[in-house]
Amino acid sequence: MPRIRHKRLDCSPGCAVEATLELIDGKWKGVILFHLLQGTLRFNALRKLLPNATQRMLTMQLRELEEDGFIHREIYPQVPPKVEYSLTEHGRTLEPVILALKRWGDAHTSFGASGRQAEASAKHEAEAGTH
Amino acid sequence: MPRIRHKRLDCSPGCAVEATLELIDGKWKGVILFHLLQGTLRFNALRKLLPNATQRMLTMQLRELEEDGFIHREIYPQVPPKVEYSLTEHGRTLEPVILALKRWGDAHTSFGASGRQAEASAKHEAEAGTH
Repeated sequence: MPRIRHKRLDCSPGCAVEATLELIDGKWKGVILFHLLQGTLRFNALRKLLPNATQRMLTMQLRELEEDGFIHREIYPQVPPKVEYSLTEHGRTLEPVILALKRWGDAHTSFGASGRQAEASAKHEAEAGTH
Repeated sequence: MPRIRHKRLDCSPGCAVEATLELIDGKWKGVILFHLLQGTLRFNALRKLLPNATQRMLTMQLRELEEDGFIHREIYPQVPPKVEYSLTEHGRTLEPVILALKRWGDAHTSFGASGRQAEASAKHEAEAGTH
Protein backbone atom coordinates (compact mmCIF):
# COMPACT_ATOMS: atom_id res chain seq x y z
CA MET A 1 0.00 0.00 0.00
CA PRO A 2 1.26 3.49 -0.77
CA ARG A 3 2.31 5.92 1.91
CA ILE A 4 -0.63 8.07 2.97
CA ARG A 5 0.20 11.57 4.25
CA HIS A 6 -2.26 13.54 6.28
CA LYS A 7 -1.15 14.68 9.64
CA ARG A 8 -3.53 17.59 9.74
CA LEU A 9 -6.91 16.09 9.06
CA ASP A 10 -9.89 15.96 11.27
CA CYS A 11 -12.05 12.89 10.96
CA SER A 12 -15.39 14.30 9.97
CA PRO A 13 -17.07 12.42 7.12
CA GLY A 14 -15.63 14.97 4.70
CA CYS A 15 -12.02 14.29 5.49
CA ALA A 16 -11.74 11.64 2.82
CA VAL A 17 -12.05 14.59 0.40
CA GLU A 18 -9.02 16.27 1.98
CA ALA A 19 -7.09 13.01 2.10
CA THR A 20 -7.47 12.59 -1.65
CA LEU A 21 -6.62 16.24 -2.34
CA GLU A 22 -3.45 15.99 -0.27
CA LEU A 23 -2.19 13.20 -2.47
CA ILE A 24 -2.77 14.93 -5.79
CA ASP A 25 -2.48 18.65 -5.10
CA GLY A 26 1.29 18.92 -5.38
CA LYS A 27 2.23 21.34 -8.11
CA TRP A 28 1.88 19.59 -11.51
CA LYS A 29 0.72 16.27 -10.03
CA GLY A 30 -2.79 16.52 -11.45
CA VAL A 31 -1.56 17.30 -14.91
CA ILE A 32 1.11 14.56 -14.77
CA LEU A 33 -1.53 12.00 -13.81
CA PHE A 34 -3.81 13.28 -16.57
CA HIS A 35 -1.13 12.80 -19.22
CA LEU A 36 -0.18 9.35 -17.93
CA LEU A 37 -3.84 8.29 -18.20
CA GLN A 38 -3.28 8.43 -21.97
CA GLY A 39 -0.32 6.06 -21.75
CA THR A 40 3.34 5.54 -20.86
CA LEU A 41 5.58 8.58 -21.31
CA ARG A 42 9.31 9.22 -21.29
CA PHE A 43 10.66 11.92 -19.01
CA ASN A 44 11.39 14.22 -21.95
CA ALA A 45 7.88 13.81 -23.32
CA LEU A 46 6.48 14.86 -19.94
CA ARG A 47 8.81 17.88 -19.93
CA LYS A 48 7.42 18.94 -23.30
CA LEU A 49 3.86 18.55 -22.03
CA LEU A 50 4.65 20.73 -18.98
CA PRO A 51 6.86 23.45 -20.45
CA ASN A 52 6.46 25.68 -17.39
CA ALA A 53 7.63 23.08 -14.88
CA THR A 54 11.34 23.08 -14.10
CA GLN A 55 13.20 19.79 -14.48
CA ARG A 56 13.83 19.74 -10.73
CA MET A 57 10.17 20.32 -9.86
CA LEU A 58 8.98 17.70 -12.33
CA THR A 59 11.47 15.15 -10.96
CA MET A 60 10.32 15.87 -7.41
CA GLN A 61 6.65 15.48 -8.22
CA LEU A 62 7.28 12.26 -10.16
CA ARG A 63 9.22 10.91 -7.19
CA GLU A 64 6.37 11.66 -4.78
CA LEU A 65 3.82 10.09 -7.11
CA GLU A 66 6.06 7.03 -7.29
CA GLU A 67 6.40 6.91 -3.47
CA ASP A 68 2.62 7.10 -3.16
CA GLY A 69 2.32 4.11 -5.49
CA PHE A 70 0.54 5.99 -8.27
CA ILE A 71 3.21 5.73 -10.97
CA HIS A 72 5.86 3.26 -11.99
CA ARG A 73 9.31 4.29 -13.22
CA GLU A 74 10.99 1.92 -15.64
CA ILE A 75 14.66 2.45 -16.34
CA TYR A 76 16.08 0.78 -19.45
CA PRO A 77 19.80 0.04 -19.14
CA GLN A 78 20.93 1.54 -22.41
CA VAL A 79 23.01 4.48 -23.59
CA PRO A 80 21.62 7.09 -23.36
CA PRO A 81 19.43 5.78 -20.52
CA LYS A 82 15.74 5.64 -21.24
CA VAL A 83 13.29 6.29 -18.38
CA GLU A 84 9.59 5.71 -18.80
CA TYR A 85 6.71 6.55 -16.50
CA SER A 86 3.35 4.83 -16.41
CA LEU A 87 0.38 4.62 -14.07
CA THR A 88 0.23 1.68 -11.68
CA GLU A 89 -3.05 -0.15 -11.03
CA HIS A 90 -3.40 2.03 -7.94
CA GLY A 91 -2.75 5.17 -9.99
CA ARG A 92 -5.39 4.16 -12.47
CA THR A 93 -8.00 4.17 -9.67
CA LEU A 94 -7.60 7.97 -9.69
CA GLU A 95 -9.02 8.17 -13.21
CA PRO A 96 -12.55 9.28 -12.15
CA VAL A 97 -11.03 11.98 -9.94
CA ILE A 98 -8.70 13.33 -12.62
CA LEU A 99 -11.42 13.25 -15.26
CA ALA A 100 -13.85 15.09 -12.96
CA LEU A 101 -11.20 17.78 -12.37
CA LYS A 102 -10.51 18.00 -16.11
CA ARG A 103 -14.18 18.25 -17.06
CA TRP A 104 -14.84 20.98 -14.53
CA GLY A 105 -11.76 22.93 -15.64
CA ASP A 106 -12.73 22.59 -19.29
CA ALA A 107 -16.21 23.89 -18.62
CA HIS A 108 -15.48 26.58 -16.06
CA THR A 109 -12.04 28.10 -16.46
CA SER A 110 -10.33 29.98 -19.23
CA PHE A 111 -7.74 27.20 -19.22
CA GLY A 112 -10.29 24.68 -20.37
CA ALA A 113 -9.92 22.98 -23.74
CA SER A 114 -13.05 24.77 -24.90
CA GLY A 115 -12.58 28.16 -23.29
CA ARG A 116 -15.04 30.15 -25.34
CA GLN A 117 -17.69 27.47 -25.19
CA ALA A 118 -17.21 27.29 -21.42
CA GLU A 119 -17.67 31.02 -21.03
CA ALA A 120 -20.85 30.90 -23.07
CA SER A 121 -22.17 28.02 -20.98
CA ALA A 122 -21.23 29.75 -17.72
CA LYS A 123 -23.04 32.88 -18.91
CA HIS A 124 -26.06 30.79 -19.81
CA GLU A 125 -25.97 29.17 -16.36
CA ALA A 126 -25.72 32.55 -14.64
CA GLU A 127 -28.68 33.87 -16.63
CA ALA A 128 -30.71 30.76 -15.90
CA GLY A 129 -29.94 31.30 -12.22
CA THR A 130 -31.58 34.72 -12.15
CA HIS A 131 -34.98 33.47 -13.38
CA MET B 1 -17.81 35.12 -13.13
CA PRO B 2 -15.57 34.24 -10.20
CA ARG B 3 -11.93 35.21 -10.04
CA ILE B 4 -9.74 32.52 -11.54
CA ARG B 5 -6.21 32.22 -10.16
CA HIS B 6 -3.50 30.45 -12.01
CA LYS B 7 -0.40 32.36 -12.77
CA ARG B 8 1.76 29.31 -13.00
CA LEU B 9 0.01 27.08 -15.48
CA ASP B 10 1.19 25.87 -18.81
CA CYS B 11 -1.46 25.42 -21.44
CA SER B 12 -1.19 21.77 -22.30
CA PRO B 13 -4.53 19.95 -22.52
CA GLY B 14 -4.06 18.83 -18.94
CA CYS B 15 -3.89 22.27 -17.43
CA ALA B 16 -7.65 22.38 -16.86
CA VAL B 17 -6.93 19.72 -14.21
CA GLU B 18 -4.49 22.06 -12.44
CA ALA B 19 -6.81 25.01 -12.81
CA THR B 20 -9.56 23.15 -10.96
CA LEU B 21 -7.16 21.89 -8.30
CA GLU B 22 -5.88 25.42 -7.63
CA LEU B 23 -9.37 26.56 -6.81
CA ILE B 24 -10.19 23.81 -4.34
CA ASP B 25 -6.88 22.73 -2.83
CA GLY B 26 -6.68 25.38 -0.14
CA LYS B 27 -6.51 23.76 3.27
CA TRP B 28 -10.05 22.65 4.29
CA LYS B 29 -11.71 23.91 1.10
CA GLY B 30 -12.57 20.44 -0.16
CA VAL B 31 -14.12 19.44 3.12
CA ILE B 32 -16.03 22.75 3.45
CA LEU B 33 -17.50 22.27 -0.02
CA PHE B 34 -18.38 18.68 0.82
CA HIS B 35 -20.32 19.71 3.92
CA LEU B 36 -22.10 22.54 2.12
CA LEU B 37 -23.26 20.07 -0.54
CA GLN B 38 -25.53 18.67 2.18
CA GLY B 39 -27.09 22.09 2.83
CA THR B 40 -26.73 25.54 4.37
CA LEU B 41 -24.58 25.74 7.50
CA ARG B 42 -23.91 28.35 10.16
CA PHE B 43 -20.31 29.26 10.90
CA ASN B 44 -20.40 27.45 14.24
CA ALA B 45 -21.75 24.28 12.64
CA LEU B 46 -18.85 24.34 10.18
CA ARG B 47 -16.42 24.81 13.07
CA LYS B 48 -17.81 21.70 14.73
CA LEU B 49 -17.46 19.74 11.51
CA LEU B 50 -13.82 20.82 11.17
CA PRO B 51 -12.56 20.66 14.74
CA ASN B 52 -8.91 20.80 13.67
CA ALA B 53 -9.24 24.01 11.66
CA THR B 54 -8.58 27.22 13.55
CA GLN B 55 -11.26 29.90 13.42
CA ARG B 56 -8.88 32.17 11.50
CA MET B 57 -8.05 29.51 8.92
CA LEU B 58 -11.69 28.58 8.44
CA THR B 59 -12.66 32.24 7.99
CA MET B 60 -9.89 32.70 5.43
CA GLN B 61 -10.88 29.67 3.41
CA LEU B 62 -14.57 30.65 3.48
CA ARG B 63 -13.63 34.13 2.26
CA GLU B 64 -11.63 32.72 -0.67
CA LEU B 65 -14.45 30.36 -1.60
CA GLU B 66 -16.81 33.34 -1.50
CA GLU B 67 -14.45 35.43 -3.66
CA ASP B 68 -14.29 32.60 -6.18
CA GLY B 69 -18.07 32.57 -6.34
CA PHE B 70 -18.50 29.07 -4.90
CA ILE B 71 -20.28 29.98 -1.68
CA HIS B 72 -22.71 32.62 -0.51
CA ARG B 73 -22.55 34.24 2.92
CA GLU B 74 -25.84 35.44 4.36
CA ILE B 75 -25.70 37.71 7.39
CA TYR B 76 -28.89 38.06 9.41
CA PRO B 77 -29.09 41.40 11.24
CA GLN B 78 -29.97 40.10 14.66
CA VAL B 79 -28.35 39.83 18.09
CA PRO B 80 -26.27 37.74 18.31
CA PRO B 81 -25.56 37.97 14.56
CA LYS B 82 -26.30 34.85 12.56
CA VAL B 83 -24.10 34.02 9.55
CA GLU B 84 -25.00 31.23 7.17
CA TYR B 85 -23.02 29.72 4.33
CA SER B 86 -24.45 27.95 1.31
CA LEU B 87 -23.25 26.84 -2.10
CA THR B 88 -23.98 29.13 -5.04
CA GLU B 89 -25.15 27.71 -8.38
CA HIS B 90 -21.51 27.92 -9.47
CA GLY B 91 -20.37 26.11 -6.33
CA ARG B 92 -22.85 23.36 -6.97
CA THR B 93 -21.18 22.65 -10.35
CA LEU B 94 -18.24 21.30 -8.29
CA GLU B 95 -20.41 18.46 -6.96
CA PRO B 96 -19.04 15.77 -9.33
CA VAL B 97 -15.48 16.80 -8.45
CA ILE B 98 -16.05 16.75 -4.70
CA LEU B 99 -17.91 13.45 -4.86
CA ALA B 100 -15.14 11.86 -6.95
CA LEU B 101 -12.57 13.00 -4.35
CA LYS B 102 -14.77 11.68 -1.53
CA ARG B 103 -15.36 8.31 -3.17
CA TRP B 104 -11.67 7.80 -3.85
CA GLY B 105 -10.73 8.81 -0.31
CA ASP B 106 -13.36 6.50 1.15
CA ALA B 107 -12.10 3.57 -0.86
CA HIS B 108 -8.37 4.15 -0.70
CA THR B 109 -7.30 5.94 2.46
CA SER B 110 -7.55 5.13 6.11
CA PHE B 111 -9.56 8.35 6.47
CA GLY B 112 -12.37 6.95 4.38
CA ALA B 113 -15.82 6.52 5.90
CA SER B 114 -15.42 2.77 5.62
CA GLY B 115 -11.79 2.38 6.59
CA ARG B 116 -11.72 -1.32 7.25
CA GLN B 117 -13.77 -2.14 4.19
CA ALA B 118 -11.46 0.03 2.10
CA GLU B 119 -8.39 -1.77 3.42
CA ALA B 120 -9.94 -5.12 2.60
CA SER B 121 -10.82 -3.97 -0.88
CA ALA B 122 -7.33 -2.52 -1.43
CA LYS B 123 -5.82 -5.82 -0.32
CA HIS B 124 -8.12 -7.66 -2.68
CA GLU B 125 -7.08 -5.33 -5.53
CA ALA B 126 -3.41 -5.84 -4.76
CA GLU B 127 -3.83 -9.61 -4.75
CA ALA B 128 -5.80 -9.51 -7.98
CA GLY B 129 -2.98 -7.45 -9.48
CA THR B 130 -0.43 -10.19 -8.92
CA HIS B 131 -2.31 -12.80 -10.97
